[in-house]
Amino acid sequence: MVMDSQLPPPAPADPRDPQADSRDSQADPHDPHGPHDSPPPLTERHFSLGDRRVRVLLGHDCLDDVAQALTGLDADRFVFVTDDTVQGVVASKLAGVVEQTAPALLLSHPPGEAHKNLATLSRFIDLSLDFKVTRRSVVVAVGGGIPGNIAGLLAGLLFRGIRLVHVPTTVIAACDSVISAKQAVNTAHAKNTVGLYHPPELIVVDFGVVAMGSPRDMRSGTCETVKNALAIDPGQIPTLRRLLRPRADYTASDLEEIFELSLAVKSRLLLEDPHEKYSGVLLEYGHTVGHALELASAAPGSGAVPVKHGEAVALGMAVAADVAHRLGALGADAVATHEELIERVGVCRCLTAGLDTETVMHHIGFDNKRGYEAHTSSDVPMVLLGALGVPLGLGQHYLTPVPRRAVRAAVDELLRRGRECDGGHDRGHDAHG
Amino acid sequence: MVMDSQLPPPAPADPRDPQADSRDSQADPHDPHGPHDSPPPLTERHFSLGDRRVRVLLGHDCLDDVAQALTGLDADRFVFVTDDTVQGVVASKLAGVVEQTAPALLLSHPPGEAHKNLATLSRFIDLSLDFKVTRRSVVVAVGGGIPGNIAGLLAGLLFRGIRLVHVPTTVIAACDSVISAKQAVNTAHAKNTVGLYHPPELIVVDFGVVAMGSPRDMRSGTCETVKNALAIDPGQIPTLRRLLRPRADYTASDLEEIFELSLAVKSRLLLEDPHEKYSGVLLEYGHTVGHALELASAAPGSGAVPVKHGEAVALGMAVAADVAHRLGALGADAVATHEELIERVGVCRCLTAGLDTETVMHHIGFDNKRGYEAHTSSDVPMVLLGALGVPLGLGQHYLTPVPRRAVRAAVDELLRRGRECDGGHDRGHDAHG
Repeated sequence: MVMDSQLPPPAPADPRDPQADSRDSQADPHDPHGPHDSPPPLTERHFSLGDRRVRVLLGHDCLDDVAQALTGLDADRFVFVTDDTVQGVVASKLAGVVEQTAPALLLSHPPGEAHKNLATLSRFIDLSLDFKVTRRSVVVAVGGGIPGNIAGLLAGLLFRGIRLVHVPTTVIAACDSVISAKQAVNTAHAKNTVGLYHPPELIVVDFGVVAMGSPRDMRSGTCETVKNALAIDPGQIPTLRRLLRPRADYTASDLEEIFELSLAVKSRLLLEDPHEKYSGVLLEYGHTVGHALELASAAPGSGAVPVKHGEAVALGMAVAADVAHRLGALGADAVATHEELIERVGVCRCLTAGLDTETVMHHIGFDNKRGYEAHTSSDVPMVLLGALGVPLGLGQHYLTPVPRRAVRAAVDELLRRGRECDGGHDRGHDAHG
Repeated sequence: MVMDSQLPPPAPADPRDPQADSRDSQADPHDPHGPHDSPPPLTERHFSLGDRRVRVLLGHDCLDDVAQALTGLDADRFVFVTDDTVQGVVASKLAGVVEQTAPALLLSHPPGEAHKNLATLSRFIDLSLDFKVTRRSVVVAVGGGIPGNIAGLLAGLLFRGIRLVHVPTTVIAACDSVISAKQAVNTAHAKNTVGLYHPPELIVVDFGVVAMGSPRDMRSGTCETVKNALAIDPGQIPTLRRLLRPRADYTASDLEEIFELSLAVKSRLLLEDPHEKYSGVLLEYGHTVGHALELASAAPGSGAVPVKHGEAVALGMAVAADVAHRLGALGADAVATHEELIERVGVCRCLTAGLDTETVMHHIGFDNKRGYEAHTSSDVPMVLLGALGVPLGLGQHYLTPVPRRAVRAAVDELLRRGRECDGGHDRGHDAHG
């Protein structure tokens, strides 16, 4: 294996023992399932992205099965893309197994959105070509949404598109970012402004690995599923009420249920709109303000705690609901359901502490939905709801041009509540956990 | 207009006189048509790239009509991509006219393949975002294949794809590169290894501008049309015999005829194969060795004159015909037709002077067709013919795995003939013109 980072080398796989990796994983003290002898076989799902049928394999503590699925692709080379966190160890382990059949390169970048940029992408392109990838090679993303997006763009651009496999290891990657053909990196101007459409060939999820994430990461990930329920399929709300808990101490089985909810909504939308330009824009609910909160909180010297993507989307939905309510479109009961689910999912209002309205409004001005429809610079195109699951703006990409002053008022209100929140809720949730 | 280069500013357009630009162009001393009062209206053609119908507008001395076609796109901003040559003046002129309706940015790079890379692309992405492009903006490529490809990738990546217009000003761009969804830049490893598919919205060709190219550029451009006739539609050979002449002093009308031949072949292939992965691979005839000749001759310190793309393809076809003949697949008469057309188009064998077989074989090893099919590293996947218009390798992407020693023998022969050629043919053609 060729490694481009300082990750620990993988434990040597024992070719005589096909369960070695799986038992390693089961023996992990973080494994919420405890030891068991024979993991159930992988569950197979499919969804369509345009003319591409994407295969999805789901399992628990099944890294050896994941590796087997990779070797079944008849690739001449594998390029693993991951980041310099514990996820890199998973990638390293997989690379160690698959390179019994084909050479494997491990590309790793420092964690964080700041590295999801053209510089990282260019470096990975050069290293992949140094490694002599061909059209028969496969790029494997292992980790969260960030390496997944970089890997997607890498696979999409090499030889104008080679095969891409996602092995998501976080809730948000599994439930949201990998169920899409959209790939992108950020620029200094805004998130995801540079990208392309490149559907994965295969997605393999080991929920045993996903359940090892921090509560905060798992909480952030479930926010996208909450968003799908609020904006697209409110029929999922009762199931979410049963599953969600602010502490976000989800088991692998909980996470698989949450994944199935997301897959159900996204696969329905992607079937008719593989590029997410029409009904797929609904998936961007909460994202206009959400992206701005993410960028504003992550800016050097912001004085704020960096807000995670899903958390930002949850708070962005609160703003979107407030805006729609102020415009007279959304009833108080629907706003209350937003509040309730944001409470249940455990995203604390105090996350916005340290942010100011001007900075957030500045970032909203660079949102990548600009230009879907003609609008004046004083309007912000947003996905808004008229009721739960009932978006406004049909026939205009589901984007409603909202006067900036209405957005500003709702952002003001969000930040006011953030300042008033003491973070010490009696349920003792771990907002920064 | 915002300019990112040292191009001369455009002559101010007179808004009261819609023919001002056109008359400027007609008054040009290089205009092969001489002055005339009313240029004929634009001819409209269409071709299909997957689900996209591409509009093609053809005219002579019609820059004002080109500008009008651009303003008709209802763009909120225009980004012109060109290079620091006389083509930049055309871009500058167009930008000056269209910015009466929308802000225009002029991005220009130094001429040459060496600048068709990720660094130029990244810079143009940043400058476009600084200029606040949106999904409603339009990227306009003005020039040869190089700015066309950079612009294509720029348009393909911004917001995962915004509209692209090609205004080709060279024969090779008009007749070959713009009739495609393929966009790419080079890396240190090989040509066009990083790219994507992004069909143009519109192609506008002013053959009056194209006819102002140097004889050598026009000769290089017609080689792709010769390739189409040899590999795909030998029915075009009689027309080519009538049109081609080694001096390459083509009129605008000649060039329009040559363009129509190319469009006929390419539109037929693209209809069934918009990504040029199956029958479209036939368009790569002559390119495996051609790309290697281009790269080898352009390498610093090669001691050779840089070979132009079309010239390289012509010589690459000579090698492909020789290889197919050595393998017993292609008859001597078909080889002779290759020789005859390469002679008629005016590509001189002496262009390979200074190249050595090892260097050429090295570059062949990095050809971007690697990996279409499994093959050993001692095989070179090449498009070969069994007869004129009859490719070998149906069912395997039309690629025949050729033993490296057979390729080496044919490259040896090519370079031997190059060394023996004195370049002083009695027809006095201008091989380096």
